[in-house]
Amino acid sequence: MDSLNYSESLRSKASKIWEKIMAHPFIMEISEGKLPLEKFRFYIKQDYAYLIEFIRCLGIAIAKVGDRNAMRTLVSCLHTNMTIEVEMLERFSEKIGLPLDELRKTDMAPTNMGYTRHLLTVAYSGTVGETISAMLPCIWSYMEIALKIGDSPALKEHPIFNEWCSTYKSKEYRDLVEWYRDFIDDVAGGSSPVEREKMLQHFILSSRFEYMFWDMAYRMESWPV
Amino acid sequence: MDSLNYSESLRSKASKIWEKIMAHPFIMEISEGKLPLEKFRFYIKQDYAYLIEFIRCLGIAIAKVGDRNAMRTLVSCLHTNMTIEVEMLERFSEKIGLPLDELRKTDMAPTNMGYTRHLLTVAYSGTVGETISAMLPCIWSYMEIALKIGDSPALKEHPIFNEWCSTYKSKEYRDLVEWYRDFIDDVAGGSSPVEREKMLQHFILSSRFEYMFWDMAYRMESWPV
Amino acid sequence: MDSLNYSESLRSKASKIWEKIMAHPFIMEISEGKLPLEKFRFYIKQDYAYLIEFIRCLGIAIAKVGDRNAMRTLVSCLHTNMTIEVEMLERFSEKIGLPLDELRKTDMAPTNMGYTRHLLTVAYSGTVGETISAMLPCIWSYMEIALKIGDSPALKEHPIFNEWCSTYKSKEYRDLVEWYRDFIDDVAGGSSPVEREKMLQHFILSSRFEYMFWDMAYRMESWPV
Amino acid sequence: MDSLNYSESLRSKASKIWEKIMAHPFIMEISEGKLPLEKFRFYIKQDYAYLIEFIRCLGIAIAKVGDRNAMRTLVSCLHTNMTIEVEMLERFSEKIGLPLDELRKTDMAPTNMGYTRHLLTVAYSGTVGETISAMLPCIWSYMEIALKIGDSPALKEHPIFNEWCSTYKSKEYRDLVEWYRDFIDDVAGGSSPVEREKMLQHFILSSRFEYMFWDMAYRMESWPV
Repeated sequence: MDSLNYSESLRSKASKIWEKIMAHPFIMEISEGKLPLEKFRFYIKQDYAYLIEFIRCLGIAIAKVGDRNAMRTLVSCLHTNMTIEVEMLERFSEKIGLPLDELRKTDMAPTNMGYTRHLLTVAYSGTVGETISAMLPCIWSYMEIALKIGDSPALKEHPIFNEWCSTYKSKEYRDLVEWYRDFIDDVAGGSSPVEREKMLQHFILSSRFEYMFWDMAYRMESWPV
Repeated sequence: MDSLNYSESLRSKASKIWEKIMAHPFIMEISEGKLPLEKFRFYIKQDYAYLIEFIRCLGIAIAKVGDRNAMRTLVSCLHTNMTIEVEMLERFSEKIGLPLDELRKTDMAPTNMGYTRHLLTVAYSGTVGETISAMLPCIWSYMEIALKIGDSPALKEHPIFNEWCSTYKSKEYRDLVEWYRDFIDDVAGGSSPVEREKMLQHFILSSRFEYMFWDMAYRMESWPV
Repeated sequence: MDSLNYSESLRSKASKIWEKIMAHPFIMEISEGKLPLEKFRFYIKQDYAYLIEFIRCLGIAIAKVGDRNAMRTLVSCLHTNMTIEVEMLERFSEKIGLPLDELRKTDMAPTNMGYTRHLLTVAYSGTVGETISAMLPCIWSYMEIALKIGDSPALKEHPIFNEWCSTYKSKEYRDLVEWYRDFIDDVAGGSSPVEREKMLQHFILSSRFEYMFWDMAYRMESWPV
Repeated sequence: MDSLNYSESLRSKASKIWEKIMAHPFIMEISEGKLPLEKFRFYIKQDYAYLIEFIRCLGIAIAKVGDRNAMRTLVSCLHTNMTIEVEMLERFSEKIGLPLDELRKTDMAPTNMGYTRHLLTVAYSGTVGETISAMLPCIWSYMEIALKIGDSPALKEHPIFNEWCSTYKSKEYRDLVEWYRDFIDDVAGGSSPVEREKMLQHFILSSRFEYMFWDMAYRMESWPV
């Protein structure tokens, strides 16, 4: 394995899962501008709840990270996530007829619960390298999705889907993905096959949960009991 | 709320979920001695993987518990779980045509993953009272199930189901349930409404996951990607 | 106990320790402008190393905090600590003849090690209320020290000590102390006597460590082996 | 580095500290049978409080360990520590005129607090390999001390010191040390230089704290405030 391209090797080992993400009806119908708004609203609520838990994982990563420059960058990521992304979703929420109160008191659907509990468990029990590997599929696949469907004419004409999508193809967001990947590549360079295997397992599991998250939103999943 | 009976109050607030657990086809078909062995084997494998994670949660509870007598009891529970229950499943495994190797390398199905990540997240992030509240529905509902279906003639004639069921209605197991409930009642007596609300939320969520766990086994759930 | 003034009750129970902090030769000699610069340099290095660990604790608090507004404020505190305070110490370092490289690779002295391990252990094992209680004596006592000695003529004439002291009597810093105290008062309002007792114990222990930290700097403490 | 002998390499890098431990007056005076009983009593109380925290670290190691056989062994260690060693100290306590109540409510002295907070912080924030490396100096150096001074005639004639010492040169205890060392050697075999460097740092720091622990007992250390 060439450690300089470790993130690329993770990506390639999950490629079948990622292909299915890209082909999921939820993504397809966004690119065609015809996803029912009700499903999109469901998604935004779950994504907001997810993001709060994602921020918790960054908090733990900050607590555990050894290198001080990496700590500084993680603090920036955390601050950006909290002030930019959370606030973006809050502003966005109003536009799609979702009152802020309703957004904030969303209960997590089962798949979201499983996914975020997975991330938190890795953050608490694993190394920072493991944590960032588990967080990477979310960060990275959103950029890939946005780059893939972002130029679709039907999407560009849809004021809501287009605005949502533009966040994830922005320069700022792509820099964030770059930083996460560089971090993982650095960690992998100094890690053993045992740790890299764990990082891979977390990356694969989070990729599976990414697929299931879109599916959850498409089905507007609820608790069976 | 009468704090002496806090565990009973948890139980009553989850009663609708527990009724559905008791009525689930997986349980019904065990009591009728007609559950396909393939489904039972799937269940045993998942339960084994679950138990390992359950033991991890006890480890964290031992790390966090303040009272030394409670610490001593938690160490006993941990030891019992590890030497008695894990070994029982390992012996049992052979009887149902499940090689030990296969049992040990089981991958968790999605629902099992979500449930155990929930337990571990509570254990790492919460108090001991929260942790034991999250663990209680598993411990307790197994006893209720065993007491409910344990005398069914069809079950008693089924050598495998009967042996499995007898574990959970044994004196030793009932004492374990008693200890967990007493522990929770004690904690609740010294806790605030805020902490008790968290304990309730964990208890409800674990009860939901208990239902979903049986359903996962009945459907022999696999990962969609 | 009046929960609105819980932080004040913590303060009063630690008052004997705080009096000894205020009277410690390290503080006295700063106010008189005659502390040997070598001791001050030692202190700045240890404080820098301490601050990094303090930030880790905030990371864990963010991971555990339930209320989203509190989460938002903790993220601000973390960001402020990282960008303002760390950078302030880095700029300050040069002025007192301490190269940035030397500042950054400081090894913790025994007392600093014990104190920061205490804070991290509370952060990992306890509730957010416990964590903030353990962190409060540092935050708060620095303000009290600055307000007590800040107008001393000898200090005001000392360019270095005066600049150092002015940070901790600034409006911004006093607002930070206020926020921490309000947070603790809120938590205490919804907590049980058991949790408040733990919070008190952490507050007392951190107050003891605060005294010992100044003493460590005065003695320029090193490892015996 | 030969990973089969990693524990030996840790030992050799800490050899100067270990020599000072062996030569400490506390150890010397035990071997000569002339340590004041008051100092020994102080030590037993602190060691008892230490052991409780040591057990907590084992709990976290059980939560994090990947390999199931290692998990099983850690559960045995935990159980042994709790039932054998804690109970041994409790029985021993009476013999040296230390009522059980007093033993159990011991407050930790500053050095003990720092040492145990260090162990817990490593356990919560690090890998299992790091945790066991931090715990190893205590386990291992006690055996070395016992083997070094165990045959001293003056010690053998002293009923209390001799009984205390015999625990740590018993076959059972030496097997425990062997298990810890094998565990570390295994982990080191599959770990990167980065992780091994962390393990070394923890081992060195715990070795320092071992020295300071004996010195704390000899000085009957108390809190300065």
